Amino acid sequence: MTRLRIRIEFEGRHTLGPGKVQLLEAVGEHGSITAAARSMGMGYRHAWEMLDDINQCFRDPVIETETGGRAGGGARLTEFGRELIARYRAMQARAEAALAPDLEALTFACSR
Amino acid sequence: MTRLRIRIEFEGRHTLGPGKVQLLEAVGEHGSITAAARSMGMGYRHAWEMLDDINQCFRDPVIETETGGRAGGGARLTEFGRELIARYRAMQARAEAALAPDLEALTFACSR
Repeated sequence: MTRLRIRIEFEGRHTLGPGKVQLLEAVGEHGSITAAARSMGMGYRHAWEMLDDINQCFRDPVIETETGGRAGGGARLTEFGRELIARYRAMQARAEAALAPDLEALTFACSR
Repeated sequence: MTRLRIRIEFEGRHTLGPGKVQLLEAVGEHGSITAAARSMGMGYRHAWEMLDDINQCFRDPVIETETGGRAGGGARLTEFGRELIARYRAMQARAEAALAPDLEALTFACSR
């Protein structure tokens, strides 16, 4: 199936696209940056930098980290982080619906 | 200003996003792959591979190349190539309009 991906480019250098949103979802699912990075076949440092970029972009933090303790340094989504994911997914679905006839025409033109 | 970029992912490995469309536009403007690549600060080989990927995706060619002759190996957009650019730009504008309230809310949340 032909899919539409969206990327939001904020003034300056920050962007929010499918990779970062998927990483946030993985943090929410796995409860740690290490496990989230591993689930996406990505190094810890790369994942950390992506999350840092999101945190630098928005006023409110998207994840909370816990150092030490029984969980041994877990991470979880903040309420804003969950809202951000939900909004992005809703935007993607709405864009895909709005452009459905075009996506169909392009799929027809793209024979392979 | 916050902008929305769209990328179309066809089944299989082909994609069409802002970089390829900008390259097509540059070919149309400059009349050669070499000049188009240069205008985007990109090597000839990279530009050629991007155009080849587009041509492999679609049934109809997007550019016509002329070897030799007075123009010395020019390239120009086909009618399908021009239609593809126009459709992509219209899709981007339509998606941006459909998601305008979200883009505004995200811009407000993105303070820096």
